[in-house]
Amino acid sequence: MSDAIRHTPAGPTTEATEHSGASASQGRIIISVDAMGGDRGPNAVVAGIARSAKKNPDIGFILHGPTSDLKRMVQRRKVLRGRVEYRDARDIVRMEDKPSHVMRHGKDTSMWSCLESVRNKEATVAVSCGNTGALMALSMIRLRKIPGVNRPAIAVLWPSRNPSGFNVMLDVGADVRADEEDLLQYALMGASYARNGMHLDRPRIGLLNVGTEENKGRAELKAAHDLIEKAAPGGHFEFVGFVEGGDIPGDVCDVIVTDGFTGNIALKTGEGTAKLIGDLLKEAFKFSPLSRIAAVLALTSMRRLQKRIDPRRVNGGVFLGLNGTVVKSHGSADATGVAAAVKLAFQLAQQDLTNKIKARVASASASEQDAAEVNKVAE
Amino acid sequence: MSDAIRHTPAGPTTEATEHSGASASQGRIIISVDAMGGDRGPNAVVAGIARSAKKNPDIGFILHGPTSDLKRMVQRRKVLRGRVEYRDARDIVRMEDKPSHVMRHGKDTSMWSCLESVRNKEATVAVSCGNTGALMALSMIRLRKIPGVNRPAIAVLWPSRNPSGFNVMLDVGADVRADEEDLLQYALMGASYARNGMHLDRPRIGLLNVGTEENKGRAELKAAHDLIEKAAPGGHFEFVGFVEGGDIPGDVCDVIVTDGFTGNIALKTGEGTAKLIGDLLKEAFKFSPLSRIAAVLALTSMRRLQKRIDPRRVNGGVFLGLNGTVVKSHGSADATGVAAAVKLAFQLAQQDLTNKIKARVASASASEQDAAEVNKVAE
Repeated sequence: MSDAIRHTPAGPTTEATEHSGASASQGRIIISVDAMGGDRGPNAVVAGIARSAKKNPDIGFILHGPTSDLKRMVQRRKVLRGRVEYRDARDIVRMEDKPSHVMRHGKDTSMWSCLESVRNKEATVAVSCGNTGALMALSMIRLRKIPGVNRPAIAVLWPSRNPSGFNVMLDVGADVRADEEDLLQYALMGASYARNGMHLDRPRIGLLNVGTEENKGRAELKAAHDLIEKAAPGGHFEFVGFVEGGDIPGDVCDVIVTDGFTGNIALKTGEGTAKLIGDLLKEAFKFSPLSRIAAVLALTSMRRLQKRIDPRRVNGGVFLGLNGTVVKSHGSADATGVAAAVKLAFQLAQQDLTNKIKARVASASASEQDAAEVNKVAE
Repeated sequence: MSDAIRHTPAGPTTEATEHSGASASQGRIIISVDAMGGDRGPNAVVAGIARSAKKNPDIGFILHGPTSDLKRMVQRRKVLRGRVEYRDARDIVRMEDKPSHVMRHGKDTSMWSCLESVRNKEATVAVSCGNTGALMALSMIRLRKIPGVNRPAIAVLWPSRNPSGFNVMLDVGADVRADEEDLLQYALMGASYARNGMHLDRPRIGLLNVGTEENKGRAELKAAHDLIEKAAPGGHFEFVGFVEGGDIPGDVCDVIVTDGFTGNIALKTGEGTAKLIGDLLKEAFKFSPLSRIAAVLALTSMRRLQKRIDPRRVNGGVFLGLNGTVVKSHGSADATGVAAAVKLAFQLAQQDLTNKIKARVASASASEQDAAEVNKVAE
């Protein structure tokens, strides 16, 4: 633990001082990072955090995995000097491991250790490229749900026509079912995320349905429509009502609320469609000598387009509704992807997202109780 | 009714003989076409059927709407001479009309009349560009469900990586709920559609879920998984098990089975994503003088790509599970779109899809009853 950050308050390194300009390592926001379990191994993770460290002097890391190996990788990167603390973990959660197995036998894994640092308040946000199901299962038992939240949710950013370039959608797969109360909580959590992660003062919330008329869709959606509408003024968001699948990449709202089954299918359908079009586009450019010349001339424009919809730029589903925020990076994330996940984790930690969601959920249930009391008196 | 086709068996016109080479108009397959209710009016519909008539000498039409207006439009197109019969209908179902209203007050509409021609066996397939909800509601009450089918479904073709370029997905919005028995029927109907509309001998069926492991997803999906697996040998299709959203534009199966809520969201998400990428692509090509030159050089390749994923080429959701097939064309369909819908209608009529589905559903319920009997005896 010679590189400890929080535990060596006496010694900010020269390098850190150079970057931050002033403060000691205590001033940094600490992100807990699972170095293992991604498809590209710990090298990609270390390269990613090095990139983040270079861009942002206010981040420090706790890195989970086999310490001796990780140290060797970190020491090759000057920018990480004095900014990484290690927690030794010998086991790895693999992509094919079942969540139930990991819950019972995963105590020595880097993923478990990564969440532990959030649980014991050494860090407020965790980042992992590992197995999503296992990460959600471990997050549930180790971090536990915020009081008043029934089902945590996974939120993702989605390329859209909005000025920011993105929408938030939740839940995209934490749970296959959601009733009206769950959907209300997703709306509250999504609004907090949009405010703190996307800097939108008064996010517009839409409820995903098969039509925009109020009498359409499933019963729980009609009930959720009323609940979210009532919560809007107190929750400091605007409720735009029902939205359709076509509005997910659109600009009528900033947050799309849906159950984890529908959200997961929509997410993967959108990704698959984008991938198919991308591949067909490449084929089209290869078709004739003329189109090959066109491809060269269009290179910069195409790169700009690719960057605009590059999933690595918005890498990371965020687990909301737990005592601590967890950023799930793509399993295939490279250094760019890991750096994007760390950047998001930093923003959410800096804004203290977890406590803001806690306050929102508490205040919403309080007003519901108030309303119930008022109704009782009125009866 | 001077232009009547089926009712004037004596007189095939010269023009028809020229095109078909031999047979009289009785040999033609008659498609019932709602001329009204589309966004572009009856002109687009008449232009569309003229295009179909030119390509295929074996189609005849019954056209529903204000006869005097329609006759004027038809008479301007030589290719339609002797191939169109009229049914006068003064009312129009508008896009904003509620299905319940149309069911009660829609007797004089062109949509009602269009279905009536299928109901009274003058035609086996109906085509309409009108309001989907109203068309489904009217189809249910006028054509009625096939015995053994609980919920009819809307099936669409979807651009995919398959050799044919497309997958079938159903239900995309006839009903927001589906239990395991409904999903089994969708599998049977989807298999018949793929066999007869896409000429696939032994279509591969996938059941849409949030993961491919057998223990994933909602309870009704696990039950449906078993039912469809059991029905596969008798139904002459291959069951590939659970598939994910990313497989909708993929090549692991030919038919994607899901409930109408999820299917509708997936369809619109995919369409919206494709539209967003298309618009960003146009922007990218406009960005610099160099990219504008690239756009010119890439024009042919881009057109080929556009054609590959052009929704007009596969225009038409098909209502399955009714006594008669109904092809719902896009409301915004132009002549190309209408012609594509008519082509599909012709294929399905030629293959006698309705009766094939009837036979499949009957045989599946018979084998279920057989199995139940066997179980009873065994007990």
